[in-house]
Amino acid sequence: MVELAAHQTYGNEVNVAETMQEMGKVAQQAARILATATSEQKDKALLQAAKAIREHEEVILKANLKDLEAGQEKKLSASFIDRLELNTQRLKNIAKGLEDIAKLDDPVGTFLAEWERPNGLQIKRIRTPLGVIGVIFESRPNVTADAGALCLKAGNAVILRSGSDSYHSSRAIHDCLIAGLKTAGLPEGAIQIVPTTDRAAVGEMLTGLSGAIDVIVPRGGKSLVERVQNEARVPVFAHLEGICHIYVDGEADLQKAIDIVVNSKLRRTGICGAAETLLIDKAREDFVEPICKALADKGCEIRADERVSRLLSFASRADEEDWKTEYLEAILSVALVDGISGAIDHINRYSSNHTDAIISENEVTAQQFFNEVDSAILLHNASTQFADGGEFGMGAEIGIATGKMHARGPVGVEQLTSFKYCVSGNGQTRA
Amino acid sequence: MVELAAHQTYGNEVNVAETMQEMGKVAQQAARILATATSEQKDKALLQAAKAIREHEEVILKANLKDLEAGQEKKLSASFIDRLELNTQRLKNIAKGLEDIAKLDDPVGTFLAEWERPNGLQIKRIRTPLGVIGVIFESRPNVTADAGALCLKAGNAVILRSGSDSYHSSRAIHDCLIAGLKTAGLPEGAIQIVPTTDRAAVGEMLTGLSGAIDVIVPRGGKSLVERVQNEARVPVFAHLEGICHIYVDGEADLQKAIDIVVNSKLRRTGICGAAETLLIDKAREDFVEPICKALADKGCEIRADERVSRLLSFASRADEEDWKTEYLEAILSVALVDGISGAIDHINRYSSNHTDAIISENEVTAQQFFNEVDSAILLHNASTQFADGGEFGMGAEIGIATGKMHARGPVGVEQLTSFKYCVSGNGQTRA
Repeated sequence: MVELAAHQTYGNEVNVAETMQEMGKVAQQAARILATATSEQKDKALLQAAKAIREHEEVILKANLKDLEAGQEKKLSASFIDRLELNTQRLKNIAKGLEDIAKLDDPVGTFLAEWERPNGLQIKRIRTPLGVIGVIFESRPNVTADAGALCLKAGNAVILRSGSDSYHSSRAIHDCLIAGLKTAGLPEGAIQIVPTTDRAAVGEMLTGLSGAIDVIVPRGGKSLVERVQNEARVPVFAHLEGICHIYVDGEADLQKAIDIVVNSKLRRTGICGAAETLLIDKAREDFVEPICKALADKGCEIRADERVSRLLSFASRADEEDWKTEYLEAILSVALVDGISGAIDHINRYSSNHTDAIISENEVTAQQFFNEVDSAILLHNASTQFADGGEFGMGAEIGIATGKMHARGPVGVEQLTSFKYCVSGNGQTRA
Repeated sequence: MVELAAHQTYGNEVNVAETMQEMGKVAQQAARILATATSEQKDKALLQAAKAIREHEEVILKANLKDLEAGQEKKLSASFIDRLELNTQRLKNIAKGLEDIAKLDDPVGTFLAEWERPNGLQIKRIRTPLGVIGVIFESRPNVTADAGALCLKAGNAVILRSGSDSYHSSRAIHDCLIAGLKTAGLPEGAIQIVPTTDRAAVGEMLTGLSGAIDVIVPRGGKSLVERVQNEARVPVFAHLEGICHIYVDGEADLQKAIDIVVNSKLRRTGICGAAETLLIDKAREDFVEPICKALADKGCEIRADERVSRLLSFASRADEEDWKTEYLEAILSVALVDGISGAIDHINRYSSNHTDAIISENEVTAQQFFNEVDSAILLHNASTQFADGGEFGMGAEIGIATGKMHARGPVGVEQLTSFKYCVSGNGQTRA
């Protein structure tokens, strides 16, 4: 049985600024140790944390009940309560997630490149941890484990800031992570959780705790990400929204198009990789009805531009706002465009640079789409719902980034690393 | 003969905010075109710009004379005037630099990784340009050509902001770059230069011109970099200072140590890779005198800690401030440390994470140094003066970065790129 220590409890008297500065220092110290921790140690911590979660189900569910009761009192929405709720199966999934991350290859210390100079200098570019990562998330208690584990695997210290509505659940899961770290002989400072629900703590994290935090990862809705992107004084790995497009080219296979569009929109409507806009080559007006009918039959509302409206009896009209909207619901905006260049123009105007797809049997057209659309993920003849670190084979992901710097697309363990150059010589001096 | 067009002249009546916003838009438009420009086009632009510089020497030197006369009137220092001055040889070097960049491999479009998923999806991670780069530099006219060329080679649009003292020289060189772009059929907006010396333009660039600028590269002294790092709202590739250390281990070869230390400190004292602090294993006090004597004989001042002072007749005493100082002069601070761990402690406390070196014949000790010192560049038995993109074989560099994100160490064409994922399927939908 993995022992849990009682976590420190804080009242409202916590001095947030001081506490956060102190957490920053503790994280930096832990990061120095983690940078040279062995894969075995890190994996042991993860496996023992998983064990602790399995063994202490009762304690965690009790903490979760506290959050659920408070949530019901606050009249949180049913979908919110659903995200908040833990049960035996969900805890098993969380534990399994930790075990899966333990199985990933350790990125730290791997050679990214290696070459020799004419003067005999041997240059190696080697992966190192980023340092300290701040994760700010809303009320999904499982993020505590996922984010903590991914950061640890990549050798980073992490400061977790849980949403206030899942505070007790997150802390109970955090206790299990700490138990894992202890068993593995790693510093408890490797995974810290902000011990207060005071929102001022977020502000402190966004300014980087005097340089202690190297990167911030927000996990949550648009308003959280917007605040983080606007206020952060440290780099942020995130996407604000996923306005994902599918372009059905004139040379598309219609059945493929129907299958992919329906899957992209409706498999799960609430995820960032769900399609929000369908563009169809105006050369194939005959594609419009069968594709839109397949969607409508499954309960999808169609918001059509003028030309598409004329072809459909069941569509409502889209206005300018629709092209800019991430519905995250069973609604799709649909337009006819002037071939591949019309599609690219539309996408480059409205895309959130997250994920965009083309359906076409013409390889040259697909290549043009790949070349000219500047989104993190581009797909040819496949569903936009594949925009996911797990589906990419990266194991877990901490999120999807749409920025152009450092991490882009699914952010897995490799993207949570930096690198350094190690140069070996035998006495070389520069002329 | 490559024709130069007369560049637009602006008076003091330029509305800086408006001009800069407009430049941002023009740069973004150019960036979209550059992203799919061929290597041949980009290289042609560089070669034709080099030709223009060779052919229009007289025009450039005349512009330079204007700057030199103004500089003399302002009583700028001799070293400042030296950096500002152009002549036939220096122009030849600038033109040669452009030709060398043309010869580099084009990073855009190369595959960074490629794999297949069990469901048949083919995933490729492909290099893309970053977008728009802002380069803010002081009065070295050659940076106009170097920075402009590196950004172009990597498919980026660039906005150059020259120091006011080299304004006319930079604009004359810029005219040659524009002539090259024109000949190659590339947009003139690919390489823009801020058409005013008003410092407000820098502020506009640092806030990113409403998202138009993706990264800022400052090229200049500490005060410029400090301002940029403090005020920039976009990512910055830079180093604030290069407090480079050399640790001479107890198992070092003394002659190697002498050669490397002298070269690291004195080859050129004014560059960021010059050594500023020497640490010697206290187990080998006998190393102190021969190494420091070799330095002193070449005119280097030694500032020693207490224990080193006792061993030398010619050293002055170092105080706490010395360990934090990048002298950029023939001065070296020297301390005895408690073996490799004492050296690592000292370096992790005072290093600027730029470049640090170990001299040792013990591979295990060298490996510990590589593992535990977190600087962008670490060297074993080689001079710190190798901290340079050219010496790394990257061709030219736009600078050296000490941040942990995206670019670290020498920033060459590859570091001026981002990437995207291109995923090819044959109808895959997600279960």
